[in-house]
Amino acid sequence: MPVTVAVDAMGGDHGPVVTVPAALAFLEERPDAQVILVGLAPALTAALAKSRSRAKARASVQACTEVVAMDEPPADALRKKKDSSMRVAVNLVKDGAAQACVSAGNTGALMAIARFVLKTLPGIDRPAIASQLPTRKGVTTALDLGANVNCTPQQLVQFAVMGSALATAVEGIERPTVGLLNIGEEDIKGNDVVKETAELLKAAPINFYGNIEGDDIYRGTTDVVVCDGFVGNVALKVSEGLVVMLYDFLRTEFTRNVARKAAALAAMPALSAFKQRVDPRRYNGATLVGLKGVVVKSHGSADRLGFTHALFKAHAEVVSGVLDKIGREIAAVPVPAAAEPAEQDAG
Amino acid sequence: MPVTVAVDAMGGDHGPVVTVPAALAFLEERPDAQVILVGLAPALTAALAKSRSRAKARASVQACTEVVAMDEPPADALRKKKDSSMRVAVNLVKDGAAQACVSAGNTGALMAIARFVLKTLPGIDRPAIASQLPTRKGVTTALDLGANVNCTPQQLVQFAVMGSALATAVEGIERPTVGLLNIGEEDIKGNDVVKETAELLKAAPINFYGNIEGDDIYRGTTDVVVCDGFVGNVALKVSEGLVVMLYDFLRTEFTRNVARKAAALAAMPALSAFKQRVDPRRYNGATLVGLKGVVVKSHGSADRLGFTHALFKAHAEVVSGVLDKIGREIAAVPVPAAAEPAEQDAG
Repeated sequence: MPVTVAVDAMGGDHGPVVTVPAALAFLEERPDAQVILVGLAPALTAALAKSRSRAKARASVQACTEVVAMDEPPADALRKKKDSSMRVAVNLVKDGAAQACVSAGNTGALMAIARFVLKTLPGIDRPAIASQLPTRKGVTTALDLGANVNCTPQQLVQFAVMGSALATAVEGIERPTVGLLNIGEEDIKGNDVVKETAELLKAAPINFYGNIEGDDIYRGTTDVVVCDGFVGNVALKVSEGLVVMLYDFLRTEFTRNVARKAAALAAMPALSAFKQRVDPRRYNGATLVGLKGVVVKSHGSADRLGFTHALFKAHAEVVSGVLDKIGREIAAVPVPAAAEPAEQDAG
Repeated sequence: MPVTVAVDAMGGDHGPVVTVPAALAFLEERPDAQVILVGLAPALTAALAKSRSRAKARASVQACTEVVAMDEPPADALRKKKDSSMRVAVNLVKDGAAQACVSAGNTGALMAIARFVLKTLPGIDRPAIASQLPTRKGVTTALDLGANVNCTPQQLVQFAVMGSALATAVEGIERPTVGLLNIGEEDIKGNDVVKETAELLKAAPINFYGNIEGDDIYRGTTDVVVCDGFVGNVALKVSEGLVVMLYDFLRTEFTRNVARKAAALAAMPALSAFKQRVDPRRYNGATLVGLKGVVVKSHGSADRLGFTHALFKAHAEVVSGVLDKIGREIAAVPVPAAAEPAEQDAG
């Protein structure tokens, strides 16, 4: 059965100039895939006209009239732009015309629209943002990376189950180890939420490793890392900032004088290989996990290669049946879901 | 006036083998300094006997009978080991025999002992752990890095004032900019504590820059970064883990084959300069700020160079009068300190 991915072709810093060639590159690599490019007709036509890819035959166009701005308040995007490329792409998943959608647009708007249109899976209070990060041993699946600022222990348990299902489905890990991000200083380790979460995780249907600390993420201590969205977002952005700084320092040292520049030439194969290994484009694509549909968020500044990887990720999640897997595993959680009021949808 | 630093010579993974030579190296660089080495007499005598440094004349020994273990519960260290090297070193500050103390021992124990013995400065509810981190522009002073898992907005304001005073005193920055660590995703940015803190900081006697995100730390966006101890500790440890991973990858690429190894030789000056620039030993030494005394915590695994830098830091804080500065600035905060119950000392 073909896998159809709805692409918010207008999203991100670059729009169709990046999303359309990336979609065609994706189709060339995945012969079972189809894409529906959603966007303003003139922009899509122009971008498609530039390509001679034979994969075009598997790309269709769905015209819409609006675009969500990168800095638009999510509530506005949800209420006022019913014909935005983002909304229409998510609708295609809801209607079953596509099995997944990918957008490089405004994260908050995508989360709000996806929650409103698709709803959460049974047993899931709130979706989380999950992504793979490189480690010394391979990759780890980390969540939540910014969707939920305050989390209950029950929600963190749901994240653990979803992360575990993702790691199994996408990375092929049989019984992924799950670590709970905590701190090791002081006698009283962690706050009350983390402590209660650890107790609940011991009874959850996952392979709970225990508490881990920040340095365990890149050490690859566990296959899954669970934390609230505030901590996860800070950890992710701190990492991005640190990598930029280190590259900057490396570049400075390798261009300081003529001798250093000559050395840089000799060192180029090693430096290139190093850079490729931690190339953030290869890890592009965060999953909005917990929804009744596969939704992948690409980095807004992603280039063609990066956006293509986000499409690969959406494809892999569909093929591996991640939604069914989450549904089965969350049903096995012994603790009842948090007694929160029913989902407050903003639409 | 000479500056006397009390050294917990038994603390850390290595004890006197590192702390004693480091103290002598420190004395050689700071002619106005004296040290009091606190520890078990045989160990100190052995370590001192190995050195021919003329700076020995400015080092005295204070014998004690106990040592706090690295994994000892802080409450035990506080209650049961009244004659530990850590406790005696802190007592020397309390008694005025030293102006600062430095320990590479158990962080929780050091915090508990320092709080109990020295007490907090007027207007400060709880001490924080502050440290300088390298940035693309220079350094930034970040706090809290792990002492306080849950913080009130009033406490975060106190951290901001203390961090600002530290940056001025130690880094010589006139009106340091202060950033509040937050996240940018979603429409509702940050949690309630962070939002209320931002309002209070606008009225505080500091140069408040506004909210910043994780990547701003290493970008050097602000001179001071304020966050709670959970987030700060995760950010710090994530950074440590990421640097280790990147070094590991670089080493792998530069040793992959003979050609790569030859390139590494050519690239050595650049790679060494790069490594030195981000050498964590140069940034070793976290300040337990907010106490009636200068207390600096060295990394437990610090080697001689690292421990020497922690001593430099303690010296600089004494010379620059950081305690008086914090006292003056906290008195200017318009908001009354949090109406918490009186300090709960565990002793």
